[in-house]
Amino acid sequence: MALSTRLVSPLRPALAALRRAAPGQRRGLSTQPGPVHTLNLRGIFPPLTTPFSATQEVDYARLEGNLCGYASIPFRGLVVLGSNGEYPYLSLRERLELVSCVRRALPRDRLLLAGSGCESTQATIELTVSMAEAGADVALVVTPCYYRGAMTSAALVQHYTEVADASPIPVVLYSVPANTGLDLPLEAVLTLAQHPNILGIKDSGGDITRMGLMVHKTRQEDFQVLAGSAGFLLASYALGASGGVCALANVLGAALCQLDGLCREGRWQEARDLQHRLIEPNLAVTRRFGIPGLKKAMEWFGYYGGPCRAPLAPLSSPQVEELRGIFSANGWL
Amino acid sequence: MALSTRLVSPLRPALAALRRAAPGQRRGLSTQPGPVHTLNLRGIFPPLTTPFSATQEVDYARLEGNLCGYASIPFRGLVVLGSNGEYPYLSLRERLELVSCVRRALPRDRLLLAGSGCESTQATIELTVSMAEAGADVALVVTPCYYRGAMTSAALVQHYTEVADASPIPVVLYSVPANTGLDLPLEAVLTLAQHPNILGIKDSGGDITRMGLMVHKTRQEDFQVLAGSAGFLLASYALGASGGVCALANVLGAALCQLDGLCREGRWQEARDLQHRLIEPNLAVTRRFGIPGLKKAMEWFGYYGGPCRAPLAPLSSPQVEELRGIFSANGWL
Amino acid sequence: MALSTRLVSPLRPALAALRRAAPGQRRGLSTQPGPVHTLNLRGIFPPLTTPFSATQEVDYARLEGNLCGYASIPFRGLVVLGSNGEYPYLSLRERLELVSCVRRALPRDRLLLAGSGCESTQATIELTVSMAEAGADVALVVTPCYYRGAMTSAALVQHYTEVADASPIPVVLYSVPANTGLDLPLEAVLTLAQHPNILGIKDSGGDITRMGLMVHKTRQEDFQVLAGSAGFLLASYALGASGGVCALANVLGAALCQLDGLCREGRWQEARDLQHRLIEPNLAVTRRFGIPGLKKAMEWFGYYGGPCRAPLAPLSSPQVEELRGIFSANGWL
Amino acid sequence: MALSTRLVSPLRPALAALRRAAPGQRRGLSTQPGPVHTLNLRGIFPPLTTPFSATQEVDYARLEGNLCGYASIPFRGLVVLGSNGEYPYLSLRERLELVSCVRRALPRDRLLLAGSGCESTQATIELTVSMAEAGADVALVVTPCYYRGAMTSAALVQHYTEVADASPIPVVLYSVPANTGLDLPLEAVLTLAQHPNILGIKDSGGDITRMGLMVHKTRQEDFQVLAGSAGFLLASYALGASGGVCALANVLGAALCQLDGLCREGRWQEARDLQHRLIEPNLAVTRRFGIPGLKKAMEWFGYYGGPCRAPLAPLSSPQVEELRGIFSANGWL
Repeated sequence: MALSTRLVSPLRPALAALRRAAPGQRRGLSTQPGPVHTLNLRGIFPPLTTPFSATQEVDYARLEGNLCGYASIPFRGLVVLGSNGEYPYLSLRERLELVSCVRRALPRDRLLLAGSGCESTQATIELTVSMAEAGADVALVVTPCYYRGAMTSAALVQHYTEVADASPIPVVLYSVPANTGLDLPLEAVLTLAQHPNILGIKDSGGDITRMGLMVHKTRQEDFQVLAGSAGFLLASYALGASGGVCALANVLGAALCQLDGLCREGRWQEARDLQHRLIEPNLAVTRRFGIPGLKKAMEWFGYYGGPCRAPLAPLSSPQVEELRGIFSANGWL
Repeated sequence: MALSTRLVSPLRPALAALRRAAPGQRRGLSTQPGPVHTLNLRGIFPPLTTPFSATQEVDYARLEGNLCGYASIPFRGLVVLGSNGEYPYLSLRERLELVSCVRRALPRDRLLLAGSGCESTQATIELTVSMAEAGADVALVVTPCYYRGAMTSAALVQHYTEVADASPIPVVLYSVPANTGLDLPLEAVLTLAQHPNILGIKDSGGDITRMGLMVHKTRQEDFQVLAGSAGFLLASYALGASGGVCALANVLGAALCQLDGLCREGRWQEARDLQHRLIEPNLAVTRRFGIPGLKKAMEWFGYYGGPCRAPLAPLSSPQVEELRGIFSANGWL
Repeated sequence: MALSTRLVSPLRPALAALRRAAPGQRRGLSTQPGPVHTLNLRGIFPPLTTPFSATQEVDYARLEGNLCGYASIPFRGLVVLGSNGEYPYLSLRERLELVSCVRRALPRDRLLLAGSGCESTQATIELTVSMAEAGADVALVVTPCYYRGAMTSAALVQHYTEVADASPIPVVLYSVPANTGLDLPLEAVLTLAQHPNILGIKDSGGDITRMGLMVHKTRQEDFQVLAGSAGFLLASYALGASGGVCALANVLGAALCQLDGLCREGRWQEARDLQHRLIEPNLAVTRRFGIPGLKKAMEWFGYYGGPCRAPLAPLSSPQVEELRGIFSANGWL
Repeated sequence: MALSTRLVSPLRPALAALRRAAPGQRRGLSTQPGPVHTLNLRGIFPPLTTPFSATQEVDYARLEGNLCGYASIPFRGLVVLGSNGEYPYLSLRERLELVSCVRRALPRDRLLLAGSGCESTQATIELTVSMAEAGADVALVVTPCYYRGAMTSAALVQHYTEVADASPIPVVLYSVPANTGLDLPLEAVLTLAQHPNILGIKDSGGDITRMGLMVHKTRQEDFQVLAGSAGFLLASYALGASGGVCALANVLGAALCQLDGLCREGRWQEARDLQHRLIEPNLAVTRRFGIPGLKKAMEWFGYYGGPCRAPLAPLSSPQVEELRGIFSANGWL
């Protein structure tokens, strides 16, 4: 197809090579007929950071090292190419290689969600298809946002419908207003929840009233709501969310899985105490210090953090001290 | 005192009259020495609407009628002159008469919180003192906001400290960014939580992460956090809030007290189901249709709503239909 | 009238006294029949700061001193009780006394604009009437804003129409989103421009496209647009504005009148050079340091500034230095 | 170079082909040593829309047709791949082909500005170099924005400095908060204005005070400020801007060049009348109806508009009527 050739053709050889290197490793999900909604998203998903070497190349060995560290934590799965993965700084080729690499390293029972959102509908479709081919179980599709003034509810419904129609794997909506300046409107979410290939939403906005309403209004739809940050994880669970995609899981994954468990078992008082100790560290590695802070904190817990790509700047020494102090004050260091 | 004379003097005769009309009815709280923090705020507080007659006069008979209806609901207390009370549309004299009227009608075991925030520190102090004299148990002090660019954390700490120092009754901070365009900064809240005469905060912003952090960081302070809206009541309780000041309690007070009870008993699944059914009605009587919608809905549940003062406009017929549909769809009508 | 009695009655004796003290001094404008639109607003109006003594009383002697200093500057008139007058910190009685005081001191050929906007329509009407009685030529009516979510274009048109209908003096609309969080919608302005008793608008938002459009769309209406800040004065004139109400005129009144003159004479290159030197000082006494900065700067130019009422905080020494540096760097000190 | 290979390598063959197809046509600017600041940007630049065929392919014939139509209008130059060019919807290959195509069609005396901003510093450098090779005279570099919380003034100064250091052609900064949610901070602009390879800024924010301040504070730097929209073109010129990059120039190019001329000749009254008639059409093809509206309006004036790529949706019939009415009411149809 002409359109497809236009964008993806430079990537096809690379993709073919990747596929050859990983025979039989792709999940059958994308080619299976039948109800896709059997896929449950209950649990914690770290949105992986992307490790770079000192020369700012993707460092796949470091990535595998981190995955090895995460193997003992009962995550439901992983997210590759979320906002914390610096995906806007990665070429399309790098994005596909990352997904392939993680797919190879990931046990069968862990879900692989891969970010595939682009600004145009066509590019999003093409990247989603490529992600499925590279081994993703689910496509996480961020709202297009550059022309936010034109991104009406109707335009976004149309966009996601076309993507979900064309995608060989289930789609999870992704609303992250801190990055996009755009909240996927509730009415659009409710309409899209009825699409058989749309599985749920990752909502990073933090409006707990909205999250409760999404759970309530989609109760007939088997639609799964994921909290997009650790700061409101317990609250989201209390309102009926299925799980969480939390930057902090790169650092304190076991604690987040423990919080997930306490909530599921109804041990809310213990959950609250744990949640309280997670809020400040979470703010520190998200709003306060961003990805450079997240990567720095990872290093204190045995993972590789490393540099970010420019223009994301490394923390200053006082900032590192402040970050460390926040983890200490809450009993994590 | 000169400053006091300046502003309040026209009100003093009226106040004296009110006091004569209600001998011995004021709670001893404001004049008792000793720890003020014994006052607990656990439970639901409706922020009363102010009933107006057809000629836009305050209708005290209607107010007493509503109070009579609320008497059978296990509210912890009432708020007079919150945002839903149209306080910016009331003269100082009307404000004091309202508090006196409610004080007379309210049983001893119900707390009376009265809004006393003004733009200047001095006027806030004077009105707070007058509110105490008129029988309020607690002063609810909204952030000054007209010069929001100058309302730094330091300026707000200074303002509230002076008010709390001067107030004969405990103070509850009040942050309502939808009206004021200003979020009382977390650091200011944490500093003010250490003041012996500051009891807690009503936070209507809805940022559940912030609410959790306020509970966590003031755990040494016996500081009480009140959810400022019914939409995030369960989530606030899950994070450790003490109670809620919820516009919707004017309409569905019993249901909100039931939700309060379920949360306290740890029956979170039932609480969730109830919370879900309250979100849309709550949005309808707050963000969507405002006080005119709140007053209209009150009428369907046996209370007097009546008109608002201009420029708040009555609902159109289609809006009334939509509002009614929202209460019906959630099983309340 | 019952409504009037409700709010204003405590003020009536004071007002009567003021009128006795200033016999024959009120302009005939408010009681004259005939076309009100003859009143032109071409030129510069300083929005007076309100001088306070060390004990925070209004200092009328200082006010008269400042007026004396301004007498030699060719202002078109003065504004009392604008945002820079700290009107939200003044009692109603103080507001009326201020207007009366300025009226007595002001030559016949200078216009007196007085802020009279309140949150409710009824209170705004009553204060507007009182301002006319106290000698104001024009009422400057800020948008009500506490219930900004309900302040639709329709509600604001209704509000201003009722006020203008009832006002004995012409009305100027006042939109100041930095304080109110609300932009008077363009469509409301265009509707209100047709009211015979609405003379124009003071727009402090700084959106020059909107200002041009207001001039263009009201060209049949004899509607006058006033720039609400010195930073965009030249640009506003270039688009057809009539004049400016500029905080900086309290400090650099002669320079602003000179800029006004250069623009009227079409000497745009000289005007530009002058405008350039005014931008930073203007930002410094508005957005950056607010009224405390404005009052401080007034003192360097021979006027009385003095303290603000709390919670507006005085500048720190480094802030004073920075402020002074900005005036120096632009050649004013 | 490894980094370069990573991203651009798939494009190199295409680029080589383009160069072969257009021998000797690239301007010498990029390879000439010496002062780059001789390049003046005085005048109007239409930010070209990108014509698509019915199958959403770039339609180069239509593009050349439009260029042919623009040849008789005294534009200073053209912008390719600005926001109105739907650049986020174009592959890197398409972007380079577009620049090459326009370069071939454009007379020697017209400047070609090409958008080359990406999210990462490295990708921006690579695309800027490629743009220079494809024939651009100037690189227009939009602020990276996805991680806007981390895009501090320091980070942006670092980003632009690296890009300008590496670029073989002069750089123009590009701040467009309506799309990016980010205003390039004034202090960053002032620092970057000192870089020998940074020529100026296209500012689409519309804050005329800021534009005046940029002109004033860079008066030693030979830094050129371009108005980013037709709505505030006259005001920008009055404050000292050099020219304008205006979406509306795709439609009413001659009128905008006339406005440019009137301002330069000091005929401000005529300029004002013309400016007034341009504001509403400009708002209609930008904020109100966006690129679909711009393309529709182009068709009424003899140019090819055509469809946008999804998710930008075509106008409905009532919207087309409204758009047409706006051009009619202002005397353009």
